[in-house]
Amino acid sequence: MDNKTNQWREDFPILNQKVNDENLVYLDNAATTQKPQAIINDIDKFYQHDNANVHRGVHTLAERSTEQFEAARVKIQKFINAQHSDEIIYTKGTTDALNIIARSFGEENIHEGDEIVISYLEHHSNLIPWQQLAIKKHATLKYIELDKDGFVDLEDAKKKITDKTKIVSIAHVSNVLGVINPVKELASLAHMHGAVMVVDGAQSVPHMPVDVQDLDCDFLAFSGHKMLGPTGIGVLYGKEALLNAMPPVDYGGEMINFVHLYETSWNDLPWKFEAGTPNIAGAIVLGDAVDYLEKIGMQNIFDYENKLVAYVLPKLLKIDDLIVYGPHDPKKHTSVISFNLKDLHPHDLATGLDMEGVAVRAGHHCAQPLMGYLGVNATARASFYFYNTVEDADTLVKSIVATKEFFKNGTV
Amino acid sequence: MDNKTNQWREDFPILNQKVNDENLVYLDNAATTQKPQAIINDIDKFYQHDNANVHRGVHTLAERSTEQFEAARVKIQKFINAQHSDEIIYTKGTTDALNIIARSFGEENIHEGDEIVISYLEHHSNLIPWQQLAIKKHATLKYIELDKDGFVDLEDAKKKITDKTKIVSIAHVSNVLGVINPVKELASLAHMHGAVMVVDGAQSVPHMPVDVQDLDCDFLAFSGHKMLGPTGIGVLYGKEALLNAMPPVDYGGEMINFVHLYETSWNDLPWKFEAGTPNIAGAIVLGDAVDYLEKIGMQNIFDYENKLVAYVLPKLLKIDDLIVYGPHDPKKHTSVISFNLKDLHPHDLATGLDMEGVAVRAGHHCAQPLMGYLGVNATARASFYFYNTVEDADTLVKSIVATKEFFKNGTV
Repeated sequence: MDNKTNQWREDFPILNQKVNDENLVYLDNAATTQKPQAIINDIDKFYQHDNANVHRGVHTLAERSTEQFEAARVKIQKFINAQHSDEIIYTKGTTDALNIIARSFGEENIHEGDEIVISYLEHHSNLIPWQQLAIKKHATLKYIELDKDGFVDLEDAKKKITDKTKIVSIAHVSNVLGVINPVKELASLAHMHGAVMVVDGAQSVPHMPVDVQDLDCDFLAFSGHKMLGPTGIGVLYGKEALLNAMPPVDYGGEMINFVHLYETSWNDLPWKFEAGTPNIAGAIVLGDAVDYLEKIGMQNIFDYENKLVAYVLPKLLKIDDLIVYGPHDPKKHTSVISFNLKDLHPHDLATGLDMEGVAVRAGHHCAQPLMGYLGVNATARASFYFYNTVEDADTLVKSIVATKEFFKNGTV
Repeated sequence: MDNKTNQWREDFPILNQKVNDENLVYLDNAATTQKPQAIINDIDKFYQHDNANVHRGVHTLAERSTEQFEAARVKIQKFINAQHSDEIIYTKGTTDALNIIARSFGEENIHEGDEIVISYLEHHSNLIPWQQLAIKKHATLKYIELDKDGFVDLEDAKKKITDKTKIVSIAHVSNVLGVINPVKELASLAHMHGAVMVVDGAQSVPHMPVDVQDLDCDFLAFSGHKMLGPTGIGVLYGKEALLNAMPPVDYGGEMINFVHLYETSWNDLPWKFEAGTPNIAGAIVLGDAVDYLEKIGMQNIFDYENKLVAYVLPKLLKIDDLIVYGPHDPKKHTSVISFNLKDLHPHDLATGLDMEGVAVRAGHHCAQPLMGYLGVNATARASFYFYNTVEDADTLVKSIVATKEFFKNGTV
């Protein structure tokens, strides 16, 4: 690996800046990724040439924007290997997608005494919708334990998932621990008991090949802004038969066939779930982001990030007083790494790193139950993407050591 | 008025193109407006310099994006003269905002036997949420009649709004008829009976000064993409006391205080209603769009569009066989004008106009009940914005005549 740069980094103009007089090292990719200039240009191009509202328009611009909007849907379908493009619902993001599943499938199918199974490592967006649904329906919410490395434990899952289980919903990749959970095996377990399998793909889809037919998940949720796309656009994938049987959740234009004064009939998939003017530019440019990622290759991205982790994780583990959460074996680890410096609040650690130009996140990472499970209030988190380099990793390590010295001695 | 151009038109690069070998005349602004180059540049600038996820981040980029995101909220607050910035909730658009009101305020406050009052001219997004809520709660949905010009009729409103009424929800400006409804008077009527007043501002906020304190409405919904902003961002305004009492509708990151395994406490306004990563760039750039509009002045925009209507409406009324819906007095008319050519389907009319470079919309305009009320299946609709010119208006008139001749004689 080249230390200084890689062939993609220069595509990202934002990375070429100084922060606190230091070169920016952006390691907050699990929160949101940066955008290549080509994607920014695509946004411009849409607004400069083709912008119009989609569907129902017979003029040239409306036809162009509709064509691009639906073409992006097909790109996304192929990207996750869905069977049909009408299984791809545009949403505001992962959170919106998970809420739609809970509100539509959940409200219809969860009854008193039913069980919903999640795990201790879920992001709030894959926890509160199920928790609130369980409260409302007098159903039971069950948590699968984590194994010693922080993976959702398959043995415990076999105990927790029963014939009473109607929904199993699990993060494909933890946004804190960086583990890849056995969602394919969990889907098989869920199906054995007649439950549906929901996969929170926010941290997996941007970083590795994800094949919904291979996983055999029933639903998958992910966000555009975590995979080079603009903010405000995400995807709900659902199996066609399930989506067809589900009621819409938002009402308005586009999602109807006939509106009478006192009743309404719904449109076909995917539009039944897309009320109102969608994020047109967002969807089209997410399609372009998919093109960009596929040109690199998702397996290549996964392999490259694995190499980065194999490089940086042992160096982090060697820093005295640095506690690294999740597996210590780089092979078990994606490019999300959470850690704390003993006796230092992670906010102070992140502030110290920011002084060195290194952007990491600090907090509970929208995973308070996991924090409780780990026995901490918060962690610092560095998360890499394919445009990060070995030099970025070195700067992270060096800056953690410098921050530690600063807080210990009041000076570097 | 200058015939050829105006001082703003050149800010909009998309308008400078040919469609079917003719200069584009974009008259589909009620569906979505075009974006000035300055706004497109602001999107670029955000992604090239400041892009990061908002809140919870302590690094420099996260601080910058959070600051801009919250500053935009204050700009929007001032734009509609809301009392507090926490009364401004970012949504996906008008439809999303109206659904949030129905799902949160509506679910909590509508009970069997209660009445919800809307009108015959409502867009589906301000109709189906209330219709479905009424069905679910065994409440009654009532429609206020329109007067002969198509305005929501105040006399009929006085009969329909009663002490059983809990919600009155009306379009400020009709997206088909172009009338400005008496929402201030309707709000006063609603309040007299203890009901809340919801205003669908999708077609008013972009085109005229809207002051929520003067209207004394309880909720206002509008979309960014209809007022120069990007797609995928909109606003729900609500009075603080009402929003504070309402439960959240989407669950996830950002909208919580504490998440325990089996219960959760909610964050303060406005974040209680903003689960998940918001449309960060969209919100920030909507703030910039507000700046752009305020530089022109909303009253100036309203006056300019009024002059355009006063110019074009009499010319349209003079075209034989052209039926113009809504008031024929330009003073009663905003810049949305719906019409049909006798014996010609509006899709054919719109296709004919597109051949002349003129972009209008044809269809039911997401207002099927209004179409029924008017006794038609669909209309063509031309809708102007401040960057449209007298020349655009002339081209519309000329092209309608040409299309009429073509379909009559098979030739122009």
